[in-house]
Amino acid sequence: MEILIANDDGYQAKGLEVLASIMEELGHVTIVAPNGGRSGQSNAVTMGAPMRLKQIAHTDKRDTYVSDGTPTDCVKLGLEVLCKNHKPDIVVAGINHGSNASVNVIYSGTMGIVFTACEQGVPAIGFSLDDHRQEADFSYFAKYIKEIVLLLKDEKASICWNVNAPIGQLKGYRFTRQCRAHWAEDVVSTADPQGNPIYWLAGYLNNDEPEAADTDLYAMQEGYISICPSSIDTTEHNALNKLNGKI
Amino acid sequence: MEILIANDDGYQAKGLEVLASIMEELGHVTIVAPNGGRSGQSNAVTMGAPMRLKQIAHTDKRDTYVSDGTPTDCVKLGLEVLCKNHKPDIVVAGINHGSNASVNVIYSGTMGIVFTACEQGVPAIGFSLDDHRQEADFSYFAKYIKEIVLLLKDEKASICWNVNAPIGQLKGYRFTRQCRAHWAEDVVSTADPQGNPIYWLAGYLNNDEPEAADTDLYAMQEGYISICPSSIDTTEHNALNKLNGKI
Repeated sequence: MEILIANDDGYQAKGLEVLASIMEELGHVTIVAPNGGRSGQSNAVTMGAPMRLKQIAHTDKRDTYVSDGTPTDCVKLGLEVLCKNHKPDIVVAGINHGSNASVNVIYSGTMGIVFTACEQGVPAIGFSLDDHRQEADFSYFAKYIKEIVLLLKDEKASICWNVNAPIGQLKGYRFTRQCRAHWAEDVVSTADPQGNPIYWLAGYLNNDEPEAADTDLYAMQEGYISICPSSIDTTEHNALNKLNGKI
Repeated sequence: MEILIANDDGYQAKGLEVLASIMEELGHVTIVAPNGGRSGQSNAVTMGAPMRLKQIAHTDKRDTYVSDGTPTDCVKLGLEVLCKNHKPDIVVAGINHGSNASVNVIYSGTMGIVFTACEQGVPAIGFSLDDHRQEADFSYFAKYIKEIVLLLKDEKASICWNVNAPIGQLKGYRFTRQCRAHWAEDVVSTADPQGNPIYWLAGYLNNDEPEAADTDLYAMQEGYISICPSSIDTTEHNALNKLNGKI
């Protein structure tokens, strides 16, 4: 297998090394990672400015590159420059330090990588652990990664896989849907040393359907890995059918 | 009506002024715009750094603010700081200089604003014209904006409206679905003055289903405004049902 890996926590992130080490067992790995943290970058792309791409390491099993672009830029550079003549069999993103379940999916640089790969017709899976800390313990999750990749790799390439694990011991995995939730109290007003107002994003994710047992947040709360099949087709088809008088 | 407007082309964009002038006829307008162009910023948010928010103009009908944040940051600052005690009746984004139809929706800062407003439970519509030029002619599209706002404003707040117009004379509007398409040849390799390689995003959008008559790209090609109901629920429900053995 030819495997392309990108992430949004940057080339030095522990989660990236964990994922790359596992994927090396399945084939040759090309990594394109940002030169620093790019959390919350969603599907942002660099427009009207050039980007760099530099190889920083090479072994028989792995070639590692860094870029000053966004996570989405990284996967585009990987697909269009490095793998132009040998399209990868799969793109994997992560392992992200922090959950990308529920509505986090739309803000996630990790899932931005997956959505872009899907747009380009390449099967893609995003892996995220619900622990933002640099030193997060990926060991429980790591045991399942290879199995999940082998399970999903031959599914339709139009499915964007969003795989999230809670911390600690795991009971297995469940297929889930994206939970309805929203960020609450997510802007904090403080002041700079001169007394001028400044604003920070903060807050917490509020689960809007905590009782629903088929969601990603519920599965994780119960100690399962959540595997949510996502899509880049944002159309609300039920609403569209209604609007067009079909139902 | 209390109306919140944000955009991704910055506070000086012609499309923003066109939209604000129209919306003033429907109520009081608060604008929060980036301090410069932020195209292609998707749902990116500023994490781990503070943001500024500064009022630059005030009339009876309109309060205008600028921020150094992303388009998504702008709507968050608008909702959480400026409109905290008087939630707006609607968020409108744009009018974007450039189409956000088809797969552009996942890269769009304009639609990032709409998705974030929807996450926060506020009805939201993104308006985009298929013309990137600063001096784009919004006059044909402008005649339909008020009608479209009044048509959509009382629909479910969970629908993220993606409204795109072709340039020139318009025949009316159609409800559409997001067309399947992908960016082709989208990285160009050149060199800096020292001869070092640099990379630019470029390319073109390739329509993967040009014959399908129910898509946003088709409607626009035929001279209609496309109104596509979108959603922040990325779940691929058909795939999920299959995976769970339900169908």
